[in-house]
Amino acid sequence: MKKSVGNREKLFPCPVWVIGTYDTEGKPNLMTVAWGGIVSSKPASVCISIREATHSYGSIVERRAFTVNVPRADQTREADFAGIASGRDTDKFAASGLTPIRAEHVDAPLIDEFPISIECELTHTVPIGLHTLFVGEIRDVKADESILDEKDRPLIAKVKPPIWAPAELAYYSTGEFIGAGLAIGKDLVEK
Amino acid sequence: MKKSVGNREKLFPCPVWVIGTYDTEGKPNLMTVAWGGIVSSKPASVCISIREATHSYGSIVERRAFTVNVPRADQTREADFAGIASGRDTDKFAASGLTPIRAEHVDAPLIDEFPISIECELTHTVPIGLHTLFVGEIRDVKADESILDEKDRPLIAKVKPPIWAPAELAYYSTGEFIGAGLAIGKDLVEK
Repeated sequence: MKKSVGNREKLFPCPVWVIGTYDTEGKPNLMTVAWGGIVSSKPASVCISIREATHSYGSIVERRAFTVNVPRADQTREADFAGIASGRDTDKFAASGLTPIRAEHVDAPLIDEFPISIECELTHTVPIGLHTLFVGEIRDVKADESILDEKDRPLIAKVKPPIWAPAELAYYSTGEFIGAGLAIGKDLVEK
Repeated sequence: MKKSVGNREKLFPCPVWVIGTYDTEGKPNLMTVAWGGIVSSKPASVCISIREATHSYGSIVERRAFTVNVPRADQTREADFAGIASGRDTDKFAASGLTPIRAEHVDAPLIDEFPISIECELTHTVPIGLHTLFVGEIRDVKADESILDEKDRPLIAKVKPPIWAPAELAYYSTGEFIGAGLAIGKDLVEK
């Protein structure tokens, strides 16, 4: 039996993505987001939502670029830190022991130690109340060879990225294989 | 060592959300999306991206409403089916054995059997290439009492929602608790 539990964001799963930017002075910065997702296949695009009050906001508006870096489960602590501190008064790369690498196609830094880094060019800016939704077109994906299969596909089981549960303010890992997409529901089509 | 693997959507985790709509004739329909996420805390809002060619697209534009329904791991088959068949020629509720319930606050149907259903009112429509991004303001969350804690928070461990890995076209389950958010990275702040 379902009950009404209000109009807050009580749903999941959410990603834990660490956003790389250069600020006005060219200093590399990090910020963790759980508000975001893929928003188009062609051109392949992602969105992230952040508050205007953040240091990263101005960087994205100015550079029109950002990177999306996917942590492994054992890098969740570094991702959590990047969501707590502010780039205004902290060098988050140095404090977390992570290394910024200049992206190849956009004006933003990648996180060297994270297994997947996506280079994004800002294409849309949509204010939605407290947050602003930024859409970035994916210009390139850089992935660690150790997590790729023979078709250069990053395997989620080799990354086990953390998942955010907003109502609980907690991280969970990625679990076991359930089944193949566009396949396990096919028997219902033929009914 | 990272290598370039092209400009496709090779990142994760993505949600598996089943979208409920009424079509022009008032028939309830379902469609599964992996392109989407939370996009603002205030007003709490989600986005989903779907192709204009889908039956659901016209329904959302006309009714200015949709629901987001979160499956349990053991409902992944029904979710997969709703992503394969088209509402133009299939009654997806009937074929999958799911029950439409009229939402309380918006003009769209909830899935009775799924543990979480979110009632959304369309607020923004942003075409992004092949897909159109719809932002919906959350008007209410309905959750099964069996998955709630004493503060009416839905617990991800009781739902274990499937997670989509786009490059692999595969579903994975939600795994174990990693740690508390805005907490496990705090020791790095004090460095």
